[in-house]
Amino acid sequence: MADIWLPSLKTATPQEGFDLATKMARVGVKVTQPSAEIRDKLRAAYDQDTAQLIASSQVIAIHFQTVAAANNYWRD
Amino acid sequence: MADIWLPSLKTATPQEGFDLATKMARVGVKVTQPSAEIRDKLRAAYDQDTAQLIASSQVIAIHFQTVAAANNYWRD
Amino acid sequence: MADIWLPSLKTATPQEGFDLATKMARVGVKVTQPSAEIRDKLRAAYDQDTAQLIASSQVIAIHFQTVAAANNYWRD
Amino acid sequence: MADIWLPSLKTATPQEGFDLATKMARVGVKVTQPSAEIRDKLRAAYDQDTAQLIASSQVIAIHFQTVAAANNYWRD
Amino acid sequence: MADIWLPSLKTATPQEGFDLATKMARVGVKVTQPSAEIRDKLRAAYDQDTAQLIASSQVIAIHFQTVAAANNYWRD
Amino acid sequence: MADIWLPSLKTATPQEGFDLATKMARVGVKVTQPSAEIRDKLRAAYDQDTAQLIASSQVIAIHFQTVAAANNYWRD
Repeated sequence: MADIWLPSLKTATPQEGFDLATKMARVGVKVTQPSAEIRDKLRAAYDQDTAQLIASSQVIAIHFQTVAAANNYWRD
Repeated sequence: MADIWLPSLKTATPQEGFDLATKMARVGVKVTQPSAEIRDKLRAAYDQDTAQLIASSQVIAIHFQTVAAANNYWRD
Repeated sequence: MADIWLPSLKTATPQEGFDLATKMARVGVKVTQPSAEIRDKLRAAYDQDTAQLIASSQVIAIHFQTVAAANNYWRD
Repeated sequence: MADIWLPSLKTATPQEGFDLATKMARVGVKVTQPSAEIRDKLRAAYDQDTAQLIASSQVIAIHFQTVAAANNYWRD
Repeated sequence: MADIWLPSLKTATPQEGFDLATKMARVGVKVTQPSAEIRDKLRAAYDQDTAQLIASSQVIAIHFQTVAAANNYWRD
Repeated sequence: MADIWLPSLKTATPQEGFDLATKMARVGVKVTQPSAEIRDKLRAAYDQDTAQLIASSQVIAIHFQTVAAANNYWRD
């Protein structure tokens, strides 16, 4: 995690902001379980589990709130 | 997901904003489980599970907060 | 869901705002499980399940945040 | 629920605001399960279940955000 | 709970704000389960349960949002 | 916890803000379960449990909202 993955919250469009929120949700998992090997193994389980898919969607939604505010809702 | 599905957070009415929030919640699931076939199979389970229906409603509520703020609560 | 159920976020009082938030939480379930028959059957289970009652209360709380902000907290 | 239980979000102190948030969280349960008899029976279970106690505390926290904002954080 | 435990949301530092948020999360549990004896018994279970520890951390995070806003993020 | 771990919410970059949010989420667990020995033992379980990894990611997301607002979204 030493490299720069989050230089800015600014994005050109809402959709790019959604992609950024998705990335932030994934990094939030990665900082707790840094092993890519274990995460890949775990993924096989959770992407078939709707409760966890919905929970993932919720984390994206929370990050998207932040990204959207940072971009002034792309109103400018 | 290469096409444009979220060009703007602006909607004409609160109800259209609610529809957009619903769409965003679904895309949040889709980015984690991209297979439409698997999602359809999973849907058969979760739309009979009230805990997951409530969780889905919660993700919509979070996205609706963002959409409503982006539209200045349709006060203008 | 073609009819207009959310024309505005404005309400006369906080309590009417709470009622609106409750309605929004329910519509959030309805858009995922559109069958009234299935929802009625499911209701028999979940309204005896405190974890789900609390989860429902949480969705209402999130929507109420939005409705309250839209009404400038009924301060005017 | 026909009587007035939420005439205003204004409270004199943060602590009264916390009490109001607690009340709002309970009403959120009540609107889903209106039977006091059933709620009393259910309470015997959930007030011994820490997961549900924490979930209740979370709903209070969300409502308290709203009440605190409505009172301008009691800064005036 | 008759005594004054929340006279103000103002704290001198972010860290004291975090402590206050922790206290608010605990009081949110206490108002639902007022018996200290039962809470002590329950604590033995939940402080070994990571899911509940994470849930507790989440309630603190929500209250900290409120406390931080009340203190204008300690920017002044 | 007597030492100063949260002197400020200001960070130089969004990414440092994310790191701070991660730390805050962990401290939120630590205040409930202060024993490092028990937390280490528990960690062995939860970092293999995707539901808990997602829940951890969510707590980070909530704290990141606060940190981002405190830094005016690093727009200045």
